[in-house]
Amino acid sequence: MHATKERLLDEGVAMLLEHGYNDLGIQAILARTGVPKGSFYHHFPSKEEMALQAVDLYVSLGHELLEVTLAPDGRPPLHRIRGFFERLRELYASQGYLGCLLGALGQELSGANEVFRKKIEECVASIAGRIAVCLEEAGDGGDLPTGVDCRGYADALVNAWEGAALRSRLLRSPAPLDAFLDFYFPGSVSG
Amino acid sequence: MHATKERLLDEGVAMLLEHGYNDLGIQAILARTGVPKGSFYHHFPSKEEMALQAVDLYVSLGHELLEVTLAPDGRPPLHRIRGFFERLRELYASQGYLGCLLGALGQELSGANEVFRKKIEECVASIAGRIAVCLEEAGDGGDLPTGVDCRGYADALVNAWEGAALRSRLLRSPAPLDAFLDFYFPGSVSG
Repeated sequence: MHATKERLLDEGVAMLLEHGYNDLGIQAILARTGVPKGSFYHHFPSKEEMALQAVDLYVSLGHELLEVTLAPDGRPPLHRIRGFFERLRELYASQGYLGCLLGALGQELSGANEVFRKKIEECVASIAGRIAVCLEEAGDGGDLPTGVDCRGYADALVNAWEGAALRSRLLRSPAPLDAFLDFYFPGSVSG
Repeated sequence: MHATKERLLDEGVAMLLEHGYNDLGIQAILARTGVPKGSFYHHFPSKEEMALQAVDLYVSLGHELLEVTLAPDGRPPLHRIRGFFERLRELYASQGYLGCLLGALGQELSGANEVFRKKIEECVASIAGRIAVCLEEAGDGGDLPTGVDCRGYADALVNAWEGAALRSRLLRSPAPLDAFLDFYFPGSVSG
């Protein structure tokens, strides 16, 4: 990816997380990045297109974290899933506890914007789908009650995490994320 | 309350839920309500003040639901708490599954607006606090494991609900709310 485009997307993620979509002007992005207006429009036809690609970047980072943390490494599957959420907590810490970009844009935009509504749901569902695969592994190993609906449980986990991320954003604190980990993964301590 | 102010706030809640804050212009509220601009500014010094009062109205409805559903009526406390979330689900259904206004505005605004960040956290915490009281009652009656932190559990429930509400908004569907009820209140069927 072109370095300018990459810088615009990196700052785009950070600024969308702080300001949301409608409060963020292209001018502010140009000021923060030092990129000229013409260059912005060379890479993106519109702010909406920039934001959609920022979401893609954000979700691709999420899937990289899923790959790293959920890959079989000798630890029980539930510990690896806890490890994924712990890595998200680290990411949120590095951003000053502003929560999750998917939750932020999903809430702001999905009432009136079908493009973002469908996009964000697709992203959230893709993460839950990956977690469900690891939960199946846990079920096969006898680490879950028999007959658990792994996809339903994965969605419950991801939704509860999104709620904890909202609360973390409201409080600017890791406490709701810590409470999530203790509540849903009480026995697991990742190594 | 003056009838015009009440109409502005009622429509304000509905329009904020659909459009969010920054996408909503005063002009659109005037067009929807047929209220003249001067009358709007007679009741509210600014859009921010209108939105803060819309949040107050929304939360006061939430507390009315809490009063109605959690009051001792012979049913076990956990059934009454489930009843509260069922009534929220009915409310969301009547609004076309647009989720929760607290989650929507909390996500959109709390990155860059301290007034809304603190306001929304205060509102969410007040609801969790009321649920915690009912959980204490459940604990006293032996319906919860000994030593459960009722306030922490209430926050976990409210946060998980907020995540389910986000997902319901993304999907325009009650399914995530239904899944929340089945997951957190599996045995309870309200009457």
